[in-house]
Amino acid sequence: MSGGAFKASMAGRTRSEAGMTREADTPPLAIGDIREAAARIAPYVRVTPVLASAALDERAGAYLHFKCEHLQHGGAFKYRGASHAVWSLDDGTAARGVVTHSSGNHGRALALAAAARGIPAHVVIPEGAVQTKLAAIEAAGAHVVRCAPTQEAREAQTERVRTRTGARLVHPYADTRVIAGQGTVALELLRAVPALDLLVVPVGGGGLAAGCAVAAAGWRPGLRVIGIEPAGADDTARSLKAGRRITEGRPDTLCDGLRATVGAPNLALMQRHGVEVLTVTDAQTVEAMRLLWSELRQVVEPSSAVVLAAVLAYPERFAGCKVGLVLTGGNVDLDALPFN
Amino acid sequence: MSGGAFKASMAGRTRSEAGMTREADTPPLAIGDIREAAARIAPYVRVTPVLASAALDERAGAYLHFKCEHLQHGGAFKYRGASHAVWSLDDGTAARGVVTHSSGNHGRALALAAAARGIPAHVVIPEGAVQTKLAAIEAAGAHVVRCAPTQEAREAQTERVRTRTGARLVHPYADTRVIAGQGTVALELLRAVPALDLLVVPVGGGGLAAGCAVAAAGWRPGLRVIGIEPAGADDTARSLKAGRRITEGRPDTLCDGLRATVGAPNLALMQRHGVEVLTVTDAQTVEAMRLLWSELRQVVEPSSAVVLAAVLAYPERFAGCKVGLVLTGGNVDLDALPFN
Repeated sequence: MSGGAFKASMAGRTRSEAGMTREADTPPLAIGDIREAAARIAPYVRVTPVLASAALDERAGAYLHFKCEHLQHGGAFKYRGASHAVWSLDDGTAARGVVTHSSGNHGRALALAAAARGIPAHVVIPEGAVQTKLAAIEAAGAHVVRCAPTQEAREAQTERVRTRTGARLVHPYADTRVIAGQGTVALELLRAVPALDLLVVPVGGGGLAAGCAVAAAGWRPGLRVIGIEPAGADDTARSLKAGRRITEGRPDTLCDGLRATVGAPNLALMQRHGVEVLTVTDAQTVEAMRLLWSELRQVVEPSSAVVLAAVLAYPERFAGCKVGLVLTGGNVDLDALPFN
Repeated sequence: MSGGAFKASMAGRTRSEAGMTREADTPPLAIGDIREAAARIAPYVRVTPVLASAALDERAGAYLHFKCEHLQHGGAFKYRGASHAVWSLDDGTAARGVVTHSSGNHGRALALAAAARGIPAHVVIPEGAVQTKLAAIEAAGAHVVRCAPTQEAREAQTERVRTRTGARLVHPYADTRVIAGQGTVALELLRAVPALDLLVVPVGGGGLAAGCAVAAAGWRPGLRVIGIEPAGADDTARSLKAGRRITEGRPDTLCDGLRATVGAPNLALMQRHGVEVLTVTDAQTVEAMRLLWSELRQVVEPSSAVVLAAVLAYPERFAGCKVGLVLTGGNVDLDALPFN
């Protein structure tokens, strides 16, 4: 066990004693799993660029390195986790297809990953999803099933499809293969910018945050991961504070990719590795999104912009640091921009 | 003399006989000059990413490789030529500063390059320039002088500033050092994607087109450069057809970066290397700009989008080809988008 893993493990145990998720419930993921995932998906995923902007650095008072996962296949980091899940299946299981529920980007990613392997994909999509994301899922060749916009309806409808088709469920985030796949973002970013002080990622269900936390802990002890939630969907921040997974509350945010409730394994991994979660308002997010468009010249969706919003909202936390920020997706409707 | 240079030279001579610019007027630029420029500016310029999109490839029926010069310092390829001009000056000359006229991107680039060397920059800007570009030039520390929006007024005002200050004129395009600097874009793109069939670039004054033509001719005989002009500013297309530089005509196009009249050395180099120019309508450009935003997820200005507009407007010219396209700039006013 490396020193970093040991420290992380001890930290997890201390928190357990304070009433948090039991260590036994935490998936035994380590950086080796992330490296294996990276090797498995390497033939399919893009190595995305890392961009910087002198104007944004000046405004933030920090050195910002943006990992451009909105330039990943399907326009989101989700293709990593979906690819890892799809290519981990044995041939017999894979032939029966995959199924998931998703407000958009994971559904599109799973549809594309399934198409790459030549197997069927079924995607359950709640009413209210962004129209361009829905159209893209259908264009990728998935079977689309609609449902009510609640967590319960999503899960119930998915279970019905799974039972009917025999397809394997690929949960958008509460799945260790998906988590390991998402963690490959951090590996790639750290290879490009090894000396990061902090890694800042959006938090929806926690797949990216958990995967990055595992990768960062194995990369260098002391490298912190900070998760960012919209103030209107802050279940992870509240869960970490309460020491238990809080599933109540109705999300109210512009960030359509961050409305999911944090997963149990995701929360456990975030606890083990000491991930902290900060929140930002939608107004701060829209202002940050505009800055990313005008200064970094990247078309990103609101869910991506929370990371810059946080760096600007909590300057004391980032001043002078070398910060990695993951831009998670770029699937926006140009006819419905929040700043025009 | 390589076979390619020989063929190009013969081609130039044949055209001379048909009444085009005399070979003697053509600057003796060759790929060695472009390589020297690349070495000189390497400490200052960014190696910009090359992006692709499966959706755009499918739509175009070709393999498109977008060189992202809108991610260059100052948000445009212009920083390359400006840096080469500024860093080519001896210390005594440099100390008196530099002066230019520019509708925006070259002015900003020269302001930034002068600031990097710690020397003064004066920029003459015609009325009607994009507001964000003007603000950026001032922010970079240049002295801004306004003038009427005609080629004559720009040149007269620039001459007045030059005489008053002793600053060295760095013309936005009719300058061999600037041309050599812009040609480094092609070198970088060809290093990333060596087997390109075609290189497609926007044409305003012709600095980029001329530099890329020189680089391409030296890279591999037969590698063609195609320049793209807005139909409302097609002086280069008309000049190539007429066999002489046509300076009459009032530009009428949304593409604020492509309103300049082609320079004499620029036209001569384009003739020597057999550059062809195609035109696109502003409507085609706006549609292409929207596609670059939604599919490539890049914020580019209209002047950049003409390259994709042309590939879509002339499919028979590009079908099945490996095409390099230079996205030249990303300085847009988000409050005045042409497609909202």
